[in-house]
Amino acid sequence: MLERSPTPATHCEVTVQRWRDGEIEQVADDVAEEVPVALTYQGVPHVVMLATPANLEDLAVGFTLSEMIVDSPSEIQSVEAGAREDGALEVRIGIAAAKFSELLRRQRNLTGRTGCGLCGAQTVEDAIRQPKPVSGGVRVDTKSLHAALLAIREQQQINLRTGSVHAAAWVLPDAGIQLVREDVGRHNALDKVIGAVTRAGGDFTSGYFVVTSRASYEMVQKAVTVGGTLLAAVSAPTAFAVRLAEATGLTLIGFARERQHVVYAHPSRLLCTPTT
Amino acid sequence: MLERSPTPATHCEVTVQRWRDGEIEQVADDVAEEVPVALTYQGVPHVVMLATPANLEDLAVGFTLSEMIVDSPSEIQSVEAGAREDGALEVRIGIAAAKFSELLRRQRNLTGRTGCGLCGAQTVEDAIRQPKPVSGGVRVDTKSLHAALLAIREQQQINLRTGSVHAAAWVLPDAGIQLVREDVGRHNALDKVIGAVTRAGGDFTSGYFVVTSRASYEMVQKAVTVGGTLLAAVSAPTAFAVRLAEATGLTLIGFARERQHVVYAHPSRLLCTPTT
Repeated sequence: MLERSPTPATHCEVTVQRWRDGEIEQVADDVAEEVPVALTYQGVPHVVMLATPANLEDLAVGFTLSEMIVDSPSEIQSVEAGAREDGALEVRIGIAAAKFSELLRRQRNLTGRTGCGLCGAQTVEDAIRQPKPVSGGVRVDTKSLHAALLAIREQQQINLRTGSVHAAAWVLPDAGIQLVREDVGRHNALDKVIGAVTRAGGDFTSGYFVVTSRASYEMVQKAVTVGGTLLAAVSAPTAFAVRLAEATGLTLIGFARERQHVVYAHPSRLLCTPTT
Repeated sequence: MLERSPTPATHCEVTVQRWRDGEIEQVADDVAEEVPVALTYQGVPHVVMLATPANLEDLAVGFTLSEMIVDSPSEIQSVEAGAREDGALEVRIGIAAAKFSELLRRQRNLTGRTGCGLCGAQTVEDAIRQPKPVSGGVRVDTKSLHAALLAIREQQQINLRTGSVHAAAWVLPDAGIQLVREDVGRHNALDKVIGAVTRAGGDFTSGYFVVTSRASYEMVQKAVTVGGTLLAAVSAPTAFAVRLAEATGLTLIGFARERQHVVYAHPSRLLCTPTT
């Protein structure tokens, strides 16, 4: 049985020694929580990840879609987050029977050994999954992008306290930031946003993702897998991410700040408003 | 057969559109490479991780120790990095027969499903492995710490070009930085340093780790597992990392900058020199 416990705290206070220019003081410091979260499908354990204990149902829905455990939201039949009897957090996901069979079959075909880094990948062929290319999609005014980059800061509630948590946001070109999700892991933050948009019935071709972290291969892979067409990262992309964005049609923006950015792939979705 | 190919590039040049205050220019930009690297034990695939293609043998040795696949360096019998026929990078590790049997047994006991986030963990019990506590160890003058934090910057060769790569360093209190390793992944950067120190015959109680990233649970776990006694991170720790450091005796420092830092656990290893 999962218990519907009160949501665990996302940060806690610890007493620390703060050293500054030779002065030491004992002060209270807010530190981000990071907890193991188990995802199970039809009750069968699939993965344990370390995550910020907030929006865990969003995380589960986003992960299930972005890791292609199902192909469409309609194949996710239930999602329930709670605490197990031993206190550990668990999210139980129910998926379409055919997808669950496929998941089991896929896993039996693995060599039976553990995976890491990439989700369960033991071989390079498992690891490098090229999602279906995207086309069309969003058109974004650079003004809207820069406004979103400014606005996301004050919505990073956990990060404002702890300074250690990534955020991902879903932005509509004409309506600004729709939602922000935070996590100690950048993949988790993006999965939470993917899950939240999905659960709100959103359409991934109508908006774009902003992430406060780097844009690595897996971030591009997740964005494209769900049909996203533009990803803007506050920090740098990797070369592998740039190649995947080029190959799949995603507009990839890096070093996105309030008055500047760098476009690494498919710039045509960006409309440039001259500054006046 | 692994081919001893020339070391792959750690970064590449891409043409980008740089937007700054309404001005757009086409420029060349250095972007960090990120490639799938397969680790195999006695030829059997264990894991694929995305990593910066440099110091892969260090990475393999560090991972093998910090993930407790073996208990001591003497149980690692061989390590060889190279390119497979299909071009993918692979590191082949040979370990003591008893440890290989144990690895196979451990994996057969798993439910046969894939893992992610934590190395192969499907259950919380797998995921949260508490390493043996450390005691004694290094004594560090804050001056030495701050000097190392200043010095590490110019040794981040890949990051200086790309701005997107983490570093980890091994520092001796009286002799400064001994080696720096870089990777797009912070766990990998630390594993590379652990591997490099091990291969150089170093003693983990005589120095300390500096990492340019955050200090999450897994970073503390890796540092303590190999017998490290002090970890200084440029960014924040998580609460879970603080609790593990407290429980295992590791001195944990966060927000470590040139003239300041915050001590989250076991401050007694830090010697404070008054500024004069």
